[in-house]
Amino acid sequence: MTGNSIGKIFRVTTFGESHGKSLGCIIDGVPPGMKISEKDLRIDLDRRRPSENEDGISRRNEPDRVEILSGIFNGFTTGNPIGIILNNCDKRSQDYDNIREIFRPGHADYTYQKKYGVRDHRGGGRSSARETAMWVAAGSIAKKYLRQNLGITIQAYLSQVGNMFIDFKEPSCLSRKNFFCPDSSKILELKKLFSHLKKIGDSVGSKVTVFAKHMFPGLGEPVFHKLNADISYAMMNINGVKAVEIGDGFNVVQMNGSYHRDEIRKGGTFRTNHSGGILGGITTGQDVVVHIAFKPSSSIKVPCTSINHDGEEVTISVSGRHDVCIGIRAVPVVEAMLAIVLIDHFLMHKGRCMR
Amino acid sequence: MTGNSIGKIFRVTTFGESHGKSLGCIIDGVPPGMKISEKDLRIDLDRRRPSENEDGISRRNEPDRVEILSGIFNGFTTGNPIGIILNNCDKRSQDYDNIREIFRPGHADYTYQKKYGVRDHRGGGRSSARETAMWVAAGSIAKKYLRQNLGITIQAYLSQVGNMFIDFKEPSCLSRKNFFCPDSSKILELKKLFSHLKKIGDSVGSKVTVFAKHMFPGLGEPVFHKLNADISYAMMNINGVKAVEIGDGFNVVQMNGSYHRDEIRKGGTFRTNHSGGILGGITTGQDVVVHIAFKPSSSIKVPCTSINHDGEEVTISVSGRHDVCIGIRAVPVVEAMLAIVLIDHFLMHKGRCMR
Amino acid sequence: MTGNSIGKIFRVTTFGESHGKSLGCIIDGVPPGMKISEKDLRIDLDRRRPSENEDGISRRNEPDRVEILSGIFNGFTTGNPIGIILNNCDKRSQDYDNIREIFRPGHADYTYQKKYGVRDHRGGGRSSARETAMWVAAGSIAKKYLRQNLGITIQAYLSQVGNMFIDFKEPSCLSRKNFFCPDSSKILELKKLFSHLKKIGDSVGSKVTVFAKHMFPGLGEPVFHKLNADISYAMMNINGVKAVEIGDGFNVVQMNGSYHRDEIRKGGTFRTNHSGGILGGITTGQDVVVHIAFKPSSSIKVPCTSINHDGEEVTISVSGRHDVCIGIRAVPVVEAMLAIVLIDHFLMHKGRCMR
Amino acid sequence: MTGNSIGKIFRVTTFGESHGKSLGCIIDGVPPGMKISEKDLRIDLDRRRPSENEDGISRRNEPDRVEILSGIFNGFTTGNPIGIILNNCDKRSQDYDNIREIFRPGHADYTYQKKYGVRDHRGGGRSSARETAMWVAAGSIAKKYLRQNLGITIQAYLSQVGNMFIDFKEPSCLSRKNFFCPDSSKILELKKLFSHLKKIGDSVGSKVTVFAKHMFPGLGEPVFHKLNADISYAMMNINGVKAVEIGDGFNVVQMNGSYHRDEIRKGGTFRTNHSGGILGGITTGQDVVVHIAFKPSSSIKVPCTSINHDGEEVTISVSGRHDVCIGIRAVPVVEAMLAIVLIDHFLMHKGRCMR
Repeated sequence: MTGNSIGKIFRVTTFGESHGKSLGCIIDGVPPGMKISEKDLRIDLDRRRPSENEDGISRRNEPDRVEILSGIFNGFTTGNPIGIILNNCDKRSQDYDNIREIFRPGHADYTYQKKYGVRDHRGGGRSSARETAMWVAAGSIAKKYLRQNLGITIQAYLSQVGNMFIDFKEPSCLSRKNFFCPDSSKILELKKLFSHLKKIGDSVGSKVTVFAKHMFPGLGEPVFHKLNADISYAMMNINGVKAVEIGDGFNVVQMNGSYHRDEIRKGGTFRTNHSGGILGGITTGQDVVVHIAFKPSSSIKVPCTSINHDGEEVTISVSGRHDVCIGIRAVPVVEAMLAIVLIDHFLMHKGRCMR
Repeated sequence: MTGNSIGKIFRVTTFGESHGKSLGCIIDGVPPGMKISEKDLRIDLDRRRPSENEDGISRRNEPDRVEILSGIFNGFTTGNPIGIILNNCDKRSQDYDNIREIFRPGHADYTYQKKYGVRDHRGGGRSSARETAMWVAAGSIAKKYLRQNLGITIQAYLSQVGNMFIDFKEPSCLSRKNFFCPDSSKILELKKLFSHLKKIGDSVGSKVTVFAKHMFPGLGEPVFHKLNADISYAMMNINGVKAVEIGDGFNVVQMNGSYHRDEIRKGGTFRTNHSGGILGGITTGQDVVVHIAFKPSSSIKVPCTSINHDGEEVTISVSGRHDVCIGIRAVPVVEAMLAIVLIDHFLMHKGRCMR
Repeated sequence: MTGNSIGKIFRVTTFGESHGKSLGCIIDGVPPGMKISEKDLRIDLDRRRPSENEDGISRRNEPDRVEILSGIFNGFTTGNPIGIILNNCDKRSQDYDNIREIFRPGHADYTYQKKYGVRDHRGGGRSSARETAMWVAAGSIAKKYLRQNLGITIQAYLSQVGNMFIDFKEPSCLSRKNFFCPDSSKILELKKLFSHLKKIGDSVGSKVTVFAKHMFPGLGEPVFHKLNADISYAMMNINGVKAVEIGDGFNVVQMNGSYHRDEIRKGGTFRTNHSGGILGGITTGQDVVVHIAFKPSSSIKVPCTSINHDGEEVTISVSGRHDVCIGIRAVPVVEAMLAIVLIDHFLMHKGRCMR
Repeated sequence: MTGNSIGKIFRVTTFGESHGKSLGCIIDGVPPGMKISEKDLRIDLDRRRPSENEDGISRRNEPDRVEILSGIFNGFTTGNPIGIILNNCDKRSQDYDNIREIFRPGHADYTYQKKYGVRDHRGGGRSSARETAMWVAAGSIAKKYLRQNLGITIQAYLSQVGNMFIDFKEPSCLSRKNFFCPDSSKILELKKLFSHLKKIGDSVGSKVTVFAKHMFPGLGEPVFHKLNADISYAMMNINGVKAVEIGDGFNVVQMNGSYHRDEIRKGGTFRTNHSGGILGGITTGQDVVVHIAFKPSSSIKVPCTSINHDGEEVTISVSGRHDVCIGIRAVPVVEAMLAIVLIDHFLMHKGRCMR
């Protein structure tokens, strides 16, 4: 339970604070012989970055320029751990001087202080979502392996913002610029909403949906380490996540068994996919489908009451660079987490069950 | 990722199939000096069992008579692993002869066969919910430790069945007999619903809510092994779970940040508990609140289409002892899972952060 | 670091005290499709048992009758955990009444009491070597897998007792009856020594050597979890082990590099095997060779000074069933430990590095 | 079994090749509130470095200048992971061009190639002992914690080189300059031996002894994760180690039980310490004593036969910077490994057994 690693066989361990010298990670268990360069890692990291002049999204004036320090020789993985580093340049720590001794509601300030008796208050320290850049970098390697070796592809998108529901209509329009919204008819509305929220200094919650296509049956353990359990675990570690659904999720509460169970047809196809591609913790070969709820960011200008280190009440209004809808930036993070869980399960399954 | 253990410091490892000789588990990491007897384990196991003549609930004609085989000396834990066994007496394996080579839709039959190339079809083998009896036994020890050493109490209840919502009105009426329904005015309605479903051979989904009271701040790791992530993981391993929410869960999608963040008041109390008692992966000291969605059981008489081992389509109707609403029996299981996660985090936190 | 499990992918978790109800273990990670029966487990367990009327060796009047409780269906492993139980019948706990509050020198009595504040004094409780019966049972499955799937065979023997050195001359005469001594010309001498020790109530140290033949190159991790490190770890957990050597072991201290390094010849054969078949933590394909030192048993009649729970000095003489040379009974345990380490590494290697 | 981490609660994960961009590590589980700076890490790293103009010891023309990247705030640990980096400046990779396709006997070249099908040949890649600089850095933190919080001190020294035995006479003269030889009367002899070996292009084996003083009873797990097992594991991961002894080690083979068992005296003191301070896997409170055998380096000029990637025989003579006696440089590494094992066990013991 060392709290800075994920995965058992494909294992990612991270370090670094938002305003420290650097963030970094070690990716252990990468199979040898994969062609990997820093360019591979940057694709998803760039998808995670706000575009120029984008409204309502926080942004550092620095490229997320990850550097690979080990584990690659002549362009190929060697089976040895890949060390990655991301230096912090544009830190603006002074933005946080006023909250040095104040607990921002909805943030980890209070809980870190209670847990450790000490905390790095600058930019949230280790609780900053900047940490997830490392997950995205590691996820890029996992995604490449899944795609090239198993044909599995992973795709996440923004499926709900506030009470606006977004259908998966146009995969082609998915991009950071379009808020990972797969319905071009809703992009303008989203822009307006984000501008409005920015203006009033508030934020909004969101839902991200992710699926893995071209799966094969047999991934996942049957009792603990069920695939759905490991997916749920991985997603719940993303900053701001408050709920996870597999397949039909909470809707199953209102269903009857005769409706929900997915009938099987000749040749092992399924009539429906209410289960989200997982039965008894193990993939069926159908698409794996997961929904994730992100809370509205607590880093907003609307003032509220909190306390300082002395327990005295204060009024706080959070300035600085902040997202009005954290689900957007989280789209590549969600994909990375799913990829890490799938490769980890695949390497285990291959060792133990495959001929 | 050996798939039959949960917990790192307080670690539970299980074995056993529904219709094998026995189920059992090893509970490792129990602190020495606790007074524990088989009676302690039976309280929750009895809460898990259907009452006599209960409609719509499957039931074996055998007591869940767990036996402690080790780890207790003169009535007290020794710090050594506690071995527990539960023999299977009333097996009726013949009930399953007709599905020996058929995959029941909505069950793990198909996925086990694809993963392992072999499976014990009797009663679902290892995918049977009977397995959770071991979790409840282990959870009883965890609950006792939390209650006696830290004052933490855990309570789960049935919060939704189909489209019937149940409020936490009367904790006193919570019992297996009353379907763990905390509102006596709804019990008759539930009985009618279950009788009806039994008659038509169908089932219904449900939601269980669990909370831990008298928490203290500081439990949970801040990056991976966030407390919410470990809770979500634990719950998602329970048979039939399709979604997990912490605090306000999916409702946060429709909230603004100015509403959602829980303001802090003098002395470290909170005005609200939208977060479900966890910020940045670590407890705030508020109640930890979790909601879990259970799918409707797929073991129903309503016939449907499936395939056999030869890939041919067949019509299947599942007879035998089965629940119409699996959330009910899961109430003590949900409590056990939360207790196991909390004690595991506490022992880690105590070692690393407490003076 | 839950202290009752070994292995990561092929994982064995045990419970049980010498004079408790039962000992047992859960073997997780056994690949599906292996033909396994209780008979397979008994072969090595019988090799571990003293023969009738054997001098100088402790012996319970009960067969080590292990029972498999799960994980096997129609004679084949299912990929699910194998639960094993061994009931304690002939306990004679009264033999230990006189040491209830006395710490036997050279035993774990004192350290258990200091660690836990409580201990099961009967027969050493959990520190009894009876525990290793479970390791032997688990090792039998590992050995069968290695032999049938990879052609690897494992053989241990008694290589030194006191100052008597035993060469590996006659593999055919290796048996419990012959003290696992591979040189028939030394058996009589050993018998005399053991009778003498029995008579004077003393014991003697010993060395066991084990090798794995028909290895292939590539097993082991290169930095931590080096194969030699995991082997050394496994052996050092056996009761009474005080030292472990790989290949030439301590003799390397007196060697020059020009002598020690094993030259490589055309086709990848080696001129010598000073390294014990492991370079940089990874197998070379040569035989893996390990030597293990066992201390003389402290359970002897020769009286000595110790203290009781009140810290007062007492004189103690240990009666009951005890070995005069614990290395003999340990031979199958040593084989089991090596087999568990090798299968564990193989399943990991297969998942991550093999095509 | 990801092979680049050690420890469970205090967990060190490393990356980096000898001639790559950098080496680094993440130290997870460091308790909060410790005063730590880069200076603390450099003390032991400097002890590991050869002194100027020293004969017979390899040496890079660069300071081992580790940098702390995270986990420290205002000079104190925060409980978050400490990222450490060590850049490789003076690489001289061209020294290794001639062995690009040749397997050096006694090195990991052959086994890496067989395991992964690819390897970084420069300076041994990841199998270089340069990796242990990271272990020493992590060990410095562990040592400081043990010393300041528990009063435990750890000291290693060179106890044998070839057939020269060195007694622990003068702790005060222990230093890198003196080859960590605790007997000043032997230093000149060692110098001569090393000069001679350098001249003839050969190397020699060695033994290092380490002890931990001011221990308390109760550290270690009783079945697996015995303290001696974890120590043995840790040491066996150090490059070139071929054997490990606890206390009297292999000498116990020739002892009788009446001699070996350490009698206990009034107040819990022991008459002798044959056991090396560990009984049943748990500390007695006596000094923990461990001996470690290092093979003679295989990087020597004396030519020998090997093969290239095509399986053809070649003659090889290893030039470059190399140690004639690797045990010397290993002294601080041995201390670091012992410290990491002890703190890891302490944090676990504290969480589970201490009040």
